[in-house]
Amino acid sequence: MPVGTQATVKGLSQRDLHDDLHAPIILSNTYHLFLRPGHELIRKLGGLHNFMSWSGAILTDSGGYQVFSLSDLRKITDEGVTFQSHLNGDTHKFTPASTVDVQMALGSDIMMVLDECPEYPVSHEYARVSMQRTVSWAGEAMRHFHGLRGQWHEFPNPRQALFPIVQGSMFPDLRSECAEQLVELDADGYAIGGLSVGEPRPLSMEMVEATEPHLPRDRPRYAMGVGMPLELAEYVARGVDMMDCVLPSRNARNGWLFTSQGKVVIKNARYRDDAGPLDPNCGCYTCRNYSRAYLRHLFQAGEILFASLATRHNLARYLDIMGEIRQSILLAQFPQYLESQRRLAAIRDEDRNGE
Amino acid sequence: MPVGTQATVKGLSQRDLHDDLHAPIILSNTYHLFLRPGHELIRKLGGLHNFMSWSGAILTDSGGYQVFSLSDLRKITDEGVTFQSHLNGDTHKFTPASTVDVQMALGSDIMMVLDECPEYPVSHEYARVSMQRTVSWAGEAMRHFHGLRGQWHEFPNPRQALFPIVQGSMFPDLRSECAEQLVELDADGYAIGGLSVGEPRPLSMEMVEATEPHLPRDRPRYAMGVGMPLELAEYVARGVDMMDCVLPSRNARNGWLFTSQGKVVIKNARYRDDAGPLDPNCGCYTCRNYSRAYLRHLFQAGEILFASLATRHNLARYLDIMGEIRQSILLAQFPQYLESQRRLAAIRDEDRNGE
Repeated sequence: MPVGTQATVKGLSQRDLHDDLHAPIILSNTYHLFLRPGHELIRKLGGLHNFMSWSGAILTDSGGYQVFSLSDLRKITDEGVTFQSHLNGDTHKFTPASTVDVQMALGSDIMMVLDECPEYPVSHEYARVSMQRTVSWAGEAMRHFHGLRGQWHEFPNPRQALFPIVQGSMFPDLRSECAEQLVELDADGYAIGGLSVGEPRPLSMEMVEATEPHLPRDRPRYAMGVGMPLELAEYVARGVDMMDCVLPSRNARNGWLFTSQGKVVIKNARYRDDAGPLDPNCGCYTCRNYSRAYLRHLFQAGEILFASLATRHNLARYLDIMGEIRQSILLAQFPQYLESQRRLAAIRDEDRNGE
Repeated sequence: MPVGTQATVKGLSQRDLHDDLHAPIILSNTYHLFLRPGHELIRKLGGLHNFMSWSGAILTDSGGYQVFSLSDLRKITDEGVTFQSHLNGDTHKFTPASTVDVQMALGSDIMMVLDECPEYPVSHEYARVSMQRTVSWAGEAMRHFHGLRGQWHEFPNPRQALFPIVQGSMFPDLRSECAEQLVELDADGYAIGGLSVGEPRPLSMEMVEATEPHLPRDRPRYAMGVGMPLELAEYVARGVDMMDCVLPSRNARNGWLFTSQGKVVIKNARYRDDAGPLDPNCGCYTCRNYSRAYLRHLFQAGEILFASLATRHNLARYLDIMGEIRQSILLAQFPQYLESQRRLAAIRDEDRNGE
């Protein structure tokens, strides 16, 4: 899922995202939209799809992650989290019920429950307390959502799903316990949160492995905030169906491009007079129309067209990889595909530093 | 002509500019391209059209205006102008011949001769000296260009035109004299430069009026660096065929939008929940797909998509106005059209402050 933080995938029009990239679903951030322009304004304007002219699906996070990573002076209690806006310092409170209300006003297709995403590392003791709070919040959010059932039709999108989030820091026992408890909520899908918070990659994979067996096979599983291109198949191999990540779009803006032949750091002098496309195997708008030399010039000159063209390509690359994965599964060749990705990972440094 | 300073109209892909806006010609800046990425690199990559994937026409200025407005420590002699790059302080020299060489390497369709664009105001004495230098440079440039005739086919574009530029500050006698002398060069077209340098608007118009009768009727006349939307018909009424201006694109990025109903300063709170299109009479991509409320949100949030969508609209507005002017001329109704624009100018403050 491409990330559209503030109701826009940075630099991309809906034509780029829908007609060209065929992105079926994007993610948008509740925390940001709550602060600006405000969920009630978006509700008044017919919901987030209408507001941003997006006809595909939208997943909104609960805002919890941004509260923990962006806002000042946050205070967590069993009731919820109080925080100051990173924009103007105003104090706000998110509770499990209030973040459902906000996401119902936004009218996303998939909502996420409020969770606590602990930093890394934390003690087993803290991780347990935090995990139990996340489980308890998930229950509150779900009861609140179903309690509003009679009013769903008054919101922009009367057919929303609500996913709980498995936490438990880097402790397999807590991950398993959390998943087991959340499954009792019988939700439409489940997320695995608290990854990509600074832990080594093998640990992220281990946490997914500790969680996955407990999640129902007939519901989508969503690994939040991952991953690098060659990791996508690893997550899928561990039972993950959905992922979101800012890497393709953020790295694009920084001139870090993912191609079928490995990474291209476009500012490198070797691309100065390179008349070839960014990725000869890519059919995206950027690769069909522009040379590496031109892209490098735009980057060096600080031109905003660079961000737009680079983002189109990186997202195309990610969506192409997911397409390859789906195709290999349909052809019963996923193990071979995974093996090929692992061989590439061993020889490429693409995944070692992306920011 | 939309302005594509650094080989890009800021924020617009060629699809936006060509397929959507049908811009037949754009302007690009020799000074900027000379410094970065360098004209020899662009020549090596097949010329500016190839480099930026632009299939329409391109006019390049001579770089003179930017040398006078952007660079440090410039020194003018009868030979040319020595200046320091605004990027890194390197010293360079532009001569009438060298700027032709640079533009031949770029391969634009219309080249401009090096001119001196005096600041405003200057004395009649200085304006005369400067104007004579511009005339003398135009002759040198033209002789240099025709002297290379045998080698034209070695450059990216063997069918380039070269336009001299009428100067003379705000003195009608100097403007007339300059035009008369330049016409002897029998060029493919003529430009009127040195406008929009801080002078009152009636003075700009007066300078065009002093110049126009001396220019041949069968060659295009190009007023450089003008104007506001309601002024376009005024220039056409004075015999001008071509104009370029950064206003539509620069003002777009600053949230200042030109519509058929007057200006829209998108940050104004009145647009906060405005679900209507930016301009209900406009058929551009932005107006077809997005609301004022969404555009305001993008602007407030500092999103780069705003620059792209706003620029598409403002350029569509300018090109629409030029289309209206052409249509009214074909229908022999230009005087009525001009009158309608003057009535609007009297009641709108659109043209009073655009930057």
